[in-house]
Amino acid sequence: MPTQNFVIPRSVIWKEEYISLLNQQKIPQVTEYLELRTVEDVWEAIQSLKVRGAPAIGITAAYGLALAANQELSQTYESFLNNLKKHRDYLASSRPTAVNLFWALDRLMNSIKEVTNIDEAKKTILNEAKAIEAEDEKVCQSIGEHALSVFKDGDRIMTICNAGSIATAKYGTALAPFYLAKEKNINLSVYACETRPVLQGARLTTWELMQAGVDVTLITDNMAAHTIKSKNITAIIVGADRIAANGDTANKIGTFNLALLASAFNIPFYVAAPLSTFDPAITDGNQIPIEERHSEEITHIHGVQVAPEGVKVFNPAFDVTPNKLIAGIITEKGILSGDLKEAISSLFNK
Amino acid sequence: MPTQNFVIPRSVIWKEEYISLLNQQKIPQVTEYLELRTVEDVWEAIQSLKVRGAPAIGITAAYGLALAANQELSQTYESFLNNLKKHRDYLASSRPTAVNLFWALDRLMNSIKEVTNIDEAKKTILNEAKAIEAEDEKVCQSIGEHALSVFKDGDRIMTICNAGSIATAKYGTALAPFYLAKEKNINLSVYACETRPVLQGARLTTWELMQAGVDVTLITDNMAAHTIKSKNITAIIVGADRIAANGDTANKIGTFNLALLASAFNIPFYVAAPLSTFDPAITDGNQIPIEERHSEEITHIHGVQVAPEGVKVFNPAFDVTPNKLIAGIITEKGILSGDLKEAISSLFNK
Repeated sequence: MPTQNFVIPRSVIWKEEYISLLNQQKIPQVTEYLELRTVEDVWEAIQSLKVRGAPAIGITAAYGLALAANQELSQTYESFLNNLKKHRDYLASSRPTAVNLFWALDRLMNSIKEVTNIDEAKKTILNEAKAIEAEDEKVCQSIGEHALSVFKDGDRIMTICNAGSIATAKYGTALAPFYLAKEKNINLSVYACETRPVLQGARLTTWELMQAGVDVTLITDNMAAHTIKSKNITAIIVGADRIAANGDTANKIGTFNLALLASAFNIPFYVAAPLSTFDPAITDGNQIPIEERHSEEITHIHGVQVAPEGVKVFNPAFDVTPNKLIAGIITEKGILSGDLKEAISSLFNK
Repeated sequence: MPTQNFVIPRSVIWKEEYISLLNQQKIPQVTEYLELRTVEDVWEAIQSLKVRGAPAIGITAAYGLALAANQELSQTYESFLNNLKKHRDYLASSRPTAVNLFWALDRLMNSIKEVTNIDEAKKTILNEAKAIEAEDEKVCQSIGEHALSVFKDGDRIMTICNAGSIATAKYGTALAPFYLAKEKNINLSVYACETRPVLQGARLTTWELMQAGVDVTLITDNMAAHTIKSKNITAIIVGADRIAANGDTANKIGTFNLALLASAFNIPFYVAAPLSTFDPAITDGNQIPIEERHSEEITHIHGVQVAPEGVKVFNPAFDVTPNKLIAGIITEKGILSGDLKEAISSLFNK
């Protein structure tokens, strides 16, 4: 076999003069890293979805503000701060629904509350951006280590969508155990559901796992039951968009399907997510609104019409998996299992 | 509301001088009926998959042989018969894996066993082709009537793939109850799974139901669980490719998924299929070989690459639904339920 230089791909890399950003819209056909040299470049990259994944968007915005601060030519601190706030508001307008974007930008602004001069502010902002990235990587690595504790050499594990390295600083959430297993020479095989309608599984998950030399096989979403049976799948692991106080989990459409199949085949179904995904204000999954997206996402694929003109379409972006179908929620602080409501409550009241 | 001229589409229509054939490859973008005027036209249409669905292929081949017989200029019956056999073999070579193709052609050849002159042979062959079509329509209508007995006004029913009118003489199998309900002013809503990788649900099922004015909503396959829950789906009905002696049913990939979901949501899962789909020589589903198709069906959609070059793919064309998940097999002779092995055995030993 030829020697290959396997690496876990990253989507955002700070290069002092610019931000190197993986153009996720061109994956898997072309691997292209953009050089974002101005705050306008960063705005455009976020707005046009070249970067996706809540943590990756937050990190990109943070480095975008650090870039803007570094390039700021103000002579007075007051003027510097005024301009910085404008850059913050400008970056925040790139994707108004991305909570992590605001969280990261506000964290940078708060970091200089006690600062009184331009040089220190520039340094502090950059350090805070680097801290956000480093913390996310550490969270993902911890999730991966906890997840790896429930898998063993030779396991065959199914996943959906992309809760991967390129959606985060590194490692990802649901995909983290596969990278750590690779580093430790533990053999895990991944079965990736393509994840219609946007095909994140086909386009992104297979690509990033292949880059890192992880054994991955692509299936269409409706092949899950036959694949679980015929390939003896041992577990399913997915990411999460939002977790209610009782453990009910909103994630990419199709997740609920897989949770029901796991139950039918009596294999464990795991959710991998950082604590920041939990929303204790929401008591259960019924309170999570399900976004419905436009019908063309289903009726057209890459511009090609695959369904009749005017067909009625139901296009929910997410579904909610009830807590009773979840064997464990794998966080950076360990695995929550058993009575999830109790486990979540005791974790957050610590 | 504008008055619309709703019709149940047919895929094969005998026009004396030619066969009018719906070009299923252009659905749903273009509704095009081809005029097949020679046996070569018919061969090409079958070979290039312009017609699909076992009964529709059989009917097309039968009319193709009738067309060839009509156009035959032989002076002696011996020469006529020789040429007819050549046409039969030629048509049989258009799609060597289609069992219905051979069955229909052989039935036509057998129909003239006692015949001794050219004119009578031409007439007999055409009548036999018409009989094959009429019998299939009647079978589908009976299946639809039996299926309709388990549905009631207002029901919301999910299906996958295309077990429809254009795959048969008329009405289809799993879709037959929806056409009959429309004729009787019973309101049924259909939720059609798009059916990756070939998208028969998105392209064909939605199209033909819309032509007939049946209420249909398109979803992607991974939306099934969320749709069953949020739209209160009352039943699932699918077609079948092959049914074993114990009722285990091979059908389009994704069927097994739906059967497991039906069980999880405690709604009935029905298989609609003619007696010709049963293979009593096969004792159970484990004996049904599952064809695996080429990976490009998944990695490319209409020529557009949606997965990385060289990705491993698992692409089973069918799956097998175990008998215990099937509430009833709806045939032209009634609904088989309870102990399916016993029900099938007693039906076939009648």
